[in-house]
Amino acid sequence: MTDINIQQELLDLVGSSDIHKIVAGLQNANPVDVAESFEEFFEKNEPESHQKLLIIFRLLPKDYAAELFAELNPDIQESIITKITDYEIRGIVDEMFLDDAVDFIEEMPASVIARVLANIPRQRREEINSFLKYPENSAGSLMTNEYIDLKVGMTVSQTFEKIRKDGQDKETIYTCYVTDSSRRLLGTVTVKTLLLSRMDEIINDIMDTSFISAFTTDTAEDVAADFRKYGLLALPIVDSEKRIVGIVTVDDIMEVAEEVATEDFEKMAAITPSEEPYLKTSVFNLTKHRLLWLLILMISATVTGAIISHFEDALAALPILFASVPMLMDTGGNAGAQSSTLIIRGMAVGEIELADILRVLWKEFRVALVCGASLAAVNIVRMLIVNQKQNILVSLTVSLALVATVVLAKTVGCLLPMAAKKLKLDPAVMASPVITTIVDAGSLIVFFFFARLLLHV
Amino acid sequence: MTDINIQQELLDLVGSSDIHKIVAGLQNANPVDVAESFEEFFEKNEPESHQKLLIIFRLLPKDYAAELFAELNPDIQESIITKITDYEIRGIVDEMFLDDAVDFIEEMPASVIARVLANIPRQRREEINSFLKYPENSAGSLMTNEYIDLKVGMTVSQTFEKIRKDGQDKETIYTCYVTDSSRRLLGTVTVKTLLLSRMDEIINDIMDTSFISAFTTDTAEDVAADFRKYGLLALPIVDSEKRIVGIVTVDDIMEVAEEVATEDFEKMAAITPSEEPYLKTSVFNLTKHRLLWLLILMISATVTGAIISHFEDALAALPILFASVPMLMDTGGNAGAQSSTLIIRGMAVGEIELADILRVLWKEFRVALVCGASLAAVNIVRMLIVNQKQNILVSLTVSLALVATVVLAKTVGCLLPMAAKKLKLDPAVMASPVITTIVDAGSLIVFFFFARLLLHV
Repeated sequence: MTDINIQQELLDLVGSSDIHKIVAGLQNANPVDVAESFEEFFEKNEPESHQKLLIIFRLLPKDYAAELFAELNPDIQESIITKITDYEIRGIVDEMFLDDAVDFIEEMPASVIARVLANIPRQRREEINSFLKYPENSAGSLMTNEYIDLKVGMTVSQTFEKIRKDGQDKETIYTCYVTDSSRRLLGTVTVKTLLLSRMDEIINDIMDTSFISAFTTDTAEDVAADFRKYGLLALPIVDSEKRIVGIVTVDDIMEVAEEVATEDFEKMAAITPSEEPYLKTSVFNLTKHRLLWLLILMISATVTGAIISHFEDALAALPILFASVPMLMDTGGNAGAQSSTLIIRGMAVGEIELADILRVLWKEFRVALVCGASLAAVNIVRMLIVNQKQNILVSLTVSLALVATVVLAKTVGCLLPMAAKKLKLDPAVMASPVITTIVDAGSLIVFFFFARLLLHV
Repeated sequence: MTDINIQQELLDLVGSSDIHKIVAGLQNANPVDVAESFEEFFEKNEPESHQKLLIIFRLLPKDYAAELFAELNPDIQESIITKITDYEIRGIVDEMFLDDAVDFIEEMPASVIARVLANIPRQRREEINSFLKYPENSAGSLMTNEYIDLKVGMTVSQTFEKIRKDGQDKETIYTCYVTDSSRRLLGTVTVKTLLLSRMDEIINDIMDTSFISAFTTDTAEDVAADFRKYGLLALPIVDSEKRIVGIVTVDDIMEVAEEVATEDFEKMAAITPSEEPYLKTSVFNLTKHRLLWLLILMISATVTGAIISHFEDALAALPILFASVPMLMDTGGNAGAQSSTLIIRGMAVGEIELADILRVLWKEFRVALVCGASLAAVNIVRMLIVNQKQNILVSLTVSLALVATVVLAKTVGCLLPMAAKKLKLDPAVMASPVITTIVDAGSLIVFFFFARLLLHV
């Protein structure tokens, strides 16, 4: 509902000229919605409305403009930043939360970065530079330094004073962090605890010393797992000496968790992950993200081709055998995908560790035997129904190959992602397409082996 | 780290008898970690340690015991609940947050439910019953009624008094909800705003009236999308008359978002979703969740078998053709999975709507043409390298079939999930395995068509 109204307001604006009224109205709306409307207008590619959006943006109060700016996509950010004054840049980047400023800078071309960094106060520049150095996907790259920092010995009432004074510019005030003189994190105090305590109590007595924390080098996935496990609103991030360097808040981690899951979906479907939403990605980019894996997998299928060529005589002698190859290969693909998906996802959410490899293998082996045997039994019946004149030995050959295929698929399907993790590669990349290619070759060999054994082809 | 200590403490206990000391120690630990240790002890299946865990549990203060109880898995919950007194049951269920109590009751067998409901106060029973009626996966089923409820006209200082009085038992105090006399939600006030306001201000003047809310009937996915989009900590849930009936908090929604993503991973890999973690699922249950789809897909492969049998003569005449069938089918499977994954995930996170179907189709068609043509070109070269004596027409046949397969796979791969959504079926179930089965049949027919046309087999 809100979206439509903002959209309409902006639409009216493009026709009218009462910009100040619109600007006043926009400030009551959620910046997330305003950003969405800005993006839709921006996409229309009409220079005149771009011009007007820019005017509106420049008329917005600094704090609102900074919030809105952080929500815009990099294209619009760049377009705006190249059209406003150095003074305005300083105002916006200074007003943004540090994590948003870092995200913004990471997406900009070098010339824009240089101009932005040249126009902000030295302290801010140093903060940004130090946060930029954390590797992508690490806890360090997700954190911000806008938190309430308390010193041991403060009273509850002094704490409230501090929150009232500094709280406006903090990403969260609901958890405060108590540090000693060397910035080592001693404990956390929530506003809930503060509100339920006497005003003259000392925070040392009410702080939680068994708080959860993470290191700057921890992965985003691990941090997300902590948030889920303990139901956190914010997590302090410490360096190797346990000094607090920043916090990660739950709103950022929810977005990250979604992005990480989407990337896993993409990798498991043999797509190079992309950060752009589907509908905004060009055909060229969509193709670029898919073609490489399709090519690799196609070329590796040369192996299956060679195996079949090798057994060409058997096929020529008994072409009926071939009618079952697609079924065998699809079943292998499906059985492998089931295992690899459960294992990859289990490792991603922290349910399965590398140390569980033997338990996993033993479980998958038994599941594969039961699944394989059931499929084999149904397959014999299926083949007899479809072709009643058929030699029972042909059905038997196919069914035996089926059991072997399922066992092979499930074994490879659980081993490959775990091996990838062990080698510090991404397990999701070792997902079904790669496994299918391996299982295809194996199951064909087994199939021809049984055919030779039972049918003497 | 913490885990190991708790584990050790509990371990010591099983040997020692200083239970009271342990009980005192446990209360400083996070209930999530204590629950994990309880579960590990419980799994060992030693009646004596079960007995001791039960003693510890009964000695814990009521509020801590309730928090711990909510974190335990249903098996242990049931085991505990059948061994404690009616009075203790009342204490725990009364002390639990409503959403946790509802989750617990949903997992219990009928006899336990009857006993629990018989032993709690009438008001609590009615609350639980009214929350139990919301369908699974709806916003209603995720909410709790423990929030701070403010009336219009209250001052900031009165609000703080209310928070100090009632805050202890609320799931969140950081957002408070302002309602009129008929419980209609008028606005929200955060504790941050309260802390930054004068004590004598009236909440009507500082409340946010453009708050986001959801209906009890909205899906968990939609609610999660709102949390991500707006960076919320809590979301008020209203009925059709805009009266507030509960709130959903971010910690619950993070868990739900993870479960929903895991379910999508499972469905897309042809697994019936299960709520148990992999390592705790029995071989029987793992098999049960996988066999049905493997059977369905195997039986539907009868179609590909029939197509091949139909073209048996062509194969017997030119068995070399067959060497390319696995490659064609795998490429079709991979190309289809790429499209279906992007579309299913895009719909799940709200990036793609049903109304976008023509845009999606047009995009996929162009991507398919470029991918197909590139693969075809590489394939001709690949086939010539592998077998230099080979008839160029064979390579051409395979390459043409390749283009057709990729176009077919990508078209079916985007259409099927969107059609499923249109028919109110689950798009994730229409994922790659189903698409592979359809594309396999189509690409075989096209392949033989080209073979007949170019090679006259």
